[in-house]
Amino acid sequence: MKIVSFTDTKLTDGFWKNRLDTVSNVSVYNVLRRFTETGRLDALRCEWTQGDANEPHIFWDSDIAKWIESVAYILESESHPELESAVDSAIDAIASSQLVDGYYNCCYISKHLDKRWTDRTDHELYCAGHLIEAAVAYFNATGKRKLLDVMEKYLEHIYNVFVVDKSATFTTPGHEEIELALVKLYNLTDNEKYLELCKFFVDSRGVSDEQEYNGVAHKYSQSHLPVREQFTAEGHCVRACYLYMAMADLARLTDDDELLISCKRIFDDIISKKMYITGGIGSSGRGEAFTVPYDLPNLTAYSESCAALALAWFAQRMTLLEADSKYADTIERVLYNNGLSSVSLDGKAFFYVNPLEIRTELLERNTSQCNTHENLPITERKEVFDCSCCPPNITRFIASVADFLYTCDDDTVFVHQYMASETKFDDIRISQKTSYPNDGKIEIVAENVKTLAVRIPYWCSDYSITLNGAVLDSEPIYGYVYIDLTDEVNSIELDFDMSPRIVYPNSKIRDCSGKVAVVKGPVVYCAESTDNNFNLMAFKVDTTAEFTSEYSEFYGTYVLSVEGKIPTAGEQLYSFGEEKYEPATLKMIPYFGFANRGQTDMEIYFLH
Amino acid sequence: MKIVSFTDTKLTDGFWKNRLDTVSNVSVYNVLRRFTETGRLDALRCEWTQGDANEPHIFWDSDIAKWIESVAYILESESHPELESAVDSAIDAIASSQLVDGYYNCCYISKHLDKRWTDRTDHELYCAGHLIEAAVAYFNATGKRKLLDVMEKYLEHIYNVFVVDKSATFTTPGHEEIELALVKLYNLTDNEKYLELCKFFVDSRGVSDEQEYNGVAHKYSQSHLPVREQFTAEGHCVRACYLYMAMADLARLTDDDELLISCKRIFDDIISKKMYITGGIGSSGRGEAFTVPYDLPNLTAYSESCAALALAWFAQRMTLLEADSKYADTIERVLYNNGLSSVSLDGKAFFYVNPLEIRTELLERNTSQCNTHENLPITERKEVFDCSCCPPNITRFIASVADFLYTCDDDTVFVHQYMASETKFDDIRISQKTSYPNDGKIEIVAENVKTLAVRIPYWCSDYSITLNGAVLDSEPIYGYVYIDLTDEVNSIELDFDMSPRIVYPNSKIRDCSGKVAVVKGPVVYCAESTDNNFNLMAFKVDTTAEFTSEYSEFYGTYVLSVEGKIPTAGEQLYSFGEEKYEPATLKMIPYFGFANRGQTDMEIYFLH
Repeated sequence: MKIVSFTDTKLTDGFWKNRLDTVSNVSVYNVLRRFTETGRLDALRCEWTQGDANEPHIFWDSDIAKWIESVAYILESESHPELESAVDSAIDAIASSQLVDGYYNCCYISKHLDKRWTDRTDHELYCAGHLIEAAVAYFNATGKRKLLDVMEKYLEHIYNVFVVDKSATFTTPGHEEIELALVKLYNLTDNEKYLELCKFFVDSRGVSDEQEYNGVAHKYSQSHLPVREQFTAEGHCVRACYLYMAMADLARLTDDDELLISCKRIFDDIISKKMYITGGIGSSGRGEAFTVPYDLPNLTAYSESCAALALAWFAQRMTLLEADSKYADTIERVLYNNGLSSVSLDGKAFFYVNPLEIRTELLERNTSQCNTHENLPITERKEVFDCSCCPPNITRFIASVADFLYTCDDDTVFVHQYMASETKFDDIRISQKTSYPNDGKIEIVAENVKTLAVRIPYWCSDYSITLNGAVLDSEPIYGYVYIDLTDEVNSIELDFDMSPRIVYPNSKIRDCSGKVAVVKGPVVYCAESTDNNFNLMAFKVDTTAEFTSEYSEFYGTYVLSVEGKIPTAGEQLYSFGEEKYEPATLKMIPYFGFANRGQTDMEIYFLH
Repeated sequence: MKIVSFTDTKLTDGFWKNRLDTVSNVSVYNVLRRFTETGRLDALRCEWTQGDANEPHIFWDSDIAKWIESVAYILESESHPELESAVDSAIDAIASSQLVDGYYNCCYISKHLDKRWTDRTDHELYCAGHLIEAAVAYFNATGKRKLLDVMEKYLEHIYNVFVVDKSATFTTPGHEEIELALVKLYNLTDNEKYLELCKFFVDSRGVSDEQEYNGVAHKYSQSHLPVREQFTAEGHCVRACYLYMAMADLARLTDDDELLISCKRIFDDIISKKMYITGGIGSSGRGEAFTVPYDLPNLTAYSESCAALALAWFAQRMTLLEADSKYADTIERVLYNNGLSSVSLDGKAFFYVNPLEIRTELLERNTSQCNTHENLPITERKEVFDCSCCPPNITRFIASVADFLYTCDDDTVFVHQYMASETKFDDIRISQKTSYPNDGKIEIVAENVKTLAVRIPYWCSDYSITLNGAVLDSEPIYGYVYIDLTDEVNSIELDFDMSPRIVYPNSKIRDCSGKVAVVKGPVVYCAESTDNNFNLMAFKVDTTAEFTSEYSEFYGTYVLSVEGKIPTAGEQLYSFGEEKYEPATLKMIPYFGFANRGQTDMEIYFLH
């Protein structure tokens, strides 16, 4: 099984083409501007000295790398000379500052080179990993190999330090990332040494004497157990999912069944116990981490943007290992919810943390002490963060979103996602005509495909499939309907019922107790005070009522209305008479579009 | 109007007599033992030097003072030679260490006398206040005036420093307490200077240049506005209520209508927007403070023991200013819930923080990082805290609990609380025979009382009153039924319907959304996992079902059972089918008795 690369696909129109255009024409420029303003590009020359403005931070290389990767993905389909020139300059700066021994890290070279490879938490290997991903992407897009050469030389150094000399004070990276990057580089170069180094880092984790460091518990960096004995998702979510991605890659590339079992069990642990309805993971800001099963608070949800993206990428790798739609379902959950909510509709601003509930009045709750930290997420997106991992991660994610469409082996093409698009690879052509997620109808034309496996989304209980006009009566197997195609060119029409549906969260989720959510297709809905002039928390939705839907240009999809009731305001804190209610209509918008109209209360879950 | 002192009352048997006995025979000895072990008693001699164990803390004097006050209250009704001797030793240590100029503070004298009166936050005046309260109480109980003399001398010093010389770096205490203590001393001595000093501290607050200090916002210490412009409860709850107590005292003693209006509005702000059903206040651990209206989270409730007690004392002072049962209702709410929950049933251990919900599985939520602080309250009571303000506060509160029974003026005796008791003052005798709160029947015999005003509790909608056997048909006025007594000796029988009732919290309280609580009389009920083998959060109570009640020796009151249903366990996090339920019985215990059988989940609010 392999992924059909997004480079083989052209998004044609509609929902995702619009997002891609916004990222290509707004977001990636905005990130460039903010990275320039904050000194991140200048820092690459490693000329910063004490007293200068814009002191380089240990993860700045990775910010730039993800932005380069984003640009590379955009250049695959269209020319952006200004961006390409900016990337070339950045790469020149990196190449000219690389040390003779191959080492490169703008922060360490500028500030304290003598301390390199002494602090496991300090993101050196993490930055290297992102630069490798950028190098591979930029080479693929442009054929330019300067950054690739830099990174191959750097990897010689890393291999010597970690595998040959073991001269670093630690064995495995404190923040995983280089492992999955090494797989990408191996895929490009076929150089087994990269796979070996990846395996070294993965296999050494939780084995050596570095299970605890810097007072941070070993679970935080998935160092509590050897990876083949890890069966639950633990610790810092981005670290975790980047590791799981590499574990899944290795399981596939090395036929490692033990790793496969770990990956499967960890994935199931996430989606059955530790994932928000939005695809968000990591419910606690402390450690940006997975916590205990069913601990999914809405108001204080951490649900970092990068973590949701990493979950989608982990799921993508799992689709290569097992034909089960739970993986693509999870990707879809991220795509239309936590993935998209992380960027503003205009493409300019980003969420690092994606709350599932906003109560604006609580923002003032701790003002009696000005020296305490705020413990609630921010309520509006920002153009830049000090820790700016998320913005360029989101741009690379959306710029390569078509990567999630298909996987294939010799016989079967799996259709995991639905986007208006045209795809060509080998002698195969597949096109999708659809306004998904605004409509459940998809017209697929497939040429030279033997078997097409189409995903029946988890949210859909009623659908029809026709093959060349004839209705198919096929039951899904693990979420896919397998359609044998005998003609050279085949027309497949899917029609998924996309009526709004009530979602019942598990009764073990404390914050959802007695409440329901609303989805329409893959899109989770929320309500904002901006549209609703009553206490959202107290609204009781009539789960038997019909939803009204109306297309919104602003959101690029439908907004909904549903009937229910609200309590007539009581004055007392505690009273003995049962509440009285009056009818009310709840107006809902897609969650991914929340907080695009100023600060407002927001709720996903409602009493019923 | 005046309070009928608890020293005029003998609790005879039943609920409160048992509590009083436990405090007298267990708690106060336990506090003495722990204070001895932790060096608090030794510290009074001011001989601690750098390197010694048990470094004195700035609030240790106040811990000892509250313990002395507790002992004094106990000595009012029975002899405890061991306790009295321990108090005498403590007072000797204080007296012999008092400086020639009158100053006494064990921490400052031992550690950094040169810095006295330079740090507003450092509790010097707070400790002085508690020592004044102790001095008054111990003089009243024993006639011994050594501590009283010490404190009167100390007050000369304080008066000179703050009023005459203004040589301190601040004008008002960072933690209020001395103000209310000065009123007590004024009541004992009739020395106007003490009332003047109280007024000086109260009137200067929020006026001078010390509105902000130490990076702590001025609201924290109620210094954001002059007191007559304060109309909402703000900041650190204990600080706040101690201030409000003094404000109410001054309003009464100086006929200050502006202060009265502030007190009334602040009190209403608390009980209508900022009070837990248990009488707890201060929902945030950050600043141990009042927050915004309706912000009453259950799981992370701070609800400090001292704060609830202070609210009761504030309410008690308000009963002298306005004949409205909301004050005594609030006292009752504290008495039977947050007040009692703060001490274990065996009297040995204490809660500083009183959560309204415990989810034991969440205690592990942040273990991926060992260097982060726990953000949930402890789940079991402790015998001592580093900051041990609560234990001796609870003992003095319960030791003087009969202070809440009556107030009177020339014509009317107000019966605010119901406890089996005998009271004598002037030519008046009143006795109550009752097993309240286990039964709503109270037989009162009153001698030489012109008018008896009996409180109809807020939780009671059905009651009867007889006077000398004849049924009275009297409507309450602001919660009191006024009964004119023409005979010398009168027998009044009250019968309050004490059936369990469902309480509907205001829909603006986020954590109670869609949920109800259960009370029986003044007692709030909760359920623990210890008694219920299912997910308490998911239980839906049938609000139409009859409650079953059974007397429990362990709790000294009734435990309850009620029917309802629980969802049959679903595996998925999010599903489309409506939940299925099975019948279940919820066993409930009084909230004040929670966490007396080991660590367990606990809930007060239930879906319905």
